[in-house]
Amino acid sequence: MEQQPIDLRAKLATFEGHWQPRTVCEYNGHDVMVVKVQGEYKWHSHPDTDDFFLVLEGELEIDLEGGRTVRLGRGQMFVVPKGMQHRPRAIKEAHLLLIEPTGTPNSGDVATAAPRRVI
Amino acid sequence: MEQQPIDLRAKLATFEGHWQPRTVCEYNGHDVMVVKVQGEYKWHSHPDTDDFFLVLEGELEIDLEGGRTVRLGRGQMFVVPKGMQHRPRAIKEAHLLLIEPTGTPNSGDVATAAPRRVI
Repeated sequence: MEQQPIDLRAKLATFEGHWQPRTVCEYNGHDVMVVKVQGEYKWHSHPDTDDFFLVLEGELEIDLEGGRTVRLGRGQMFVVPKGMQHRPRAIKEAHLLLIEPTGTPNSGDVATAAPRRVI
Repeated sequence: MEQQPIDLRAKLATFEGHWQPRTVCEYNGHDVMVVKVQGEYKWHSHPDTDDFFLVLEGELEIDLEGGRTVRLGRGQMFVVPKGMQHRPRAIKEAHLLLIEPTGTPNSGDVATAAPRRVI
């Protein structure tokens, strides 16, 4: 893919919409993505991959199976282990860096996943 | 590994020294690391993995084989493709997020690589 610096803020400025990640580059068979989120996503898990979250702007809460919640601010990250049920949510709009193996459905389910979009 | 939020700035505050990455968590068989860099690293390549750089603070230049240089500021990232010779350098201290498959020598050479340190 491109051999230019990737400015995450600039990439985020090119689109609207929530829970619709955009791929900004590839890394070892993974999509590196930026996404805007607001509100509550659904409970889901990824049976074959850990789930990488880094907060670039705003605040994100991730409810985890078993009743725990991880609260992340800007510059904080968390990896949801493979197979663990989780529900991300944000009261106000937050901007995230995500990493998932290329082809992973963001909802954990091909039928409801956002399409892959490269920017 | 830990199921707590990972605060990258706080992790960086726990150590000194340049070009000595610390692993803050694992992701799909990779080490997610923070590192402080200053000065010029040596030319090297990783035959088996892409090399992920995200600038958290400061500025980083990455010289690439063929005479190109990528200049990254805060919030900018770059993936050096597998096998490509490159030389990272920073005039002033910069703080980076790095991702590499667990066990990858940071110098491209086991003999000269920094040891794996988990914080």
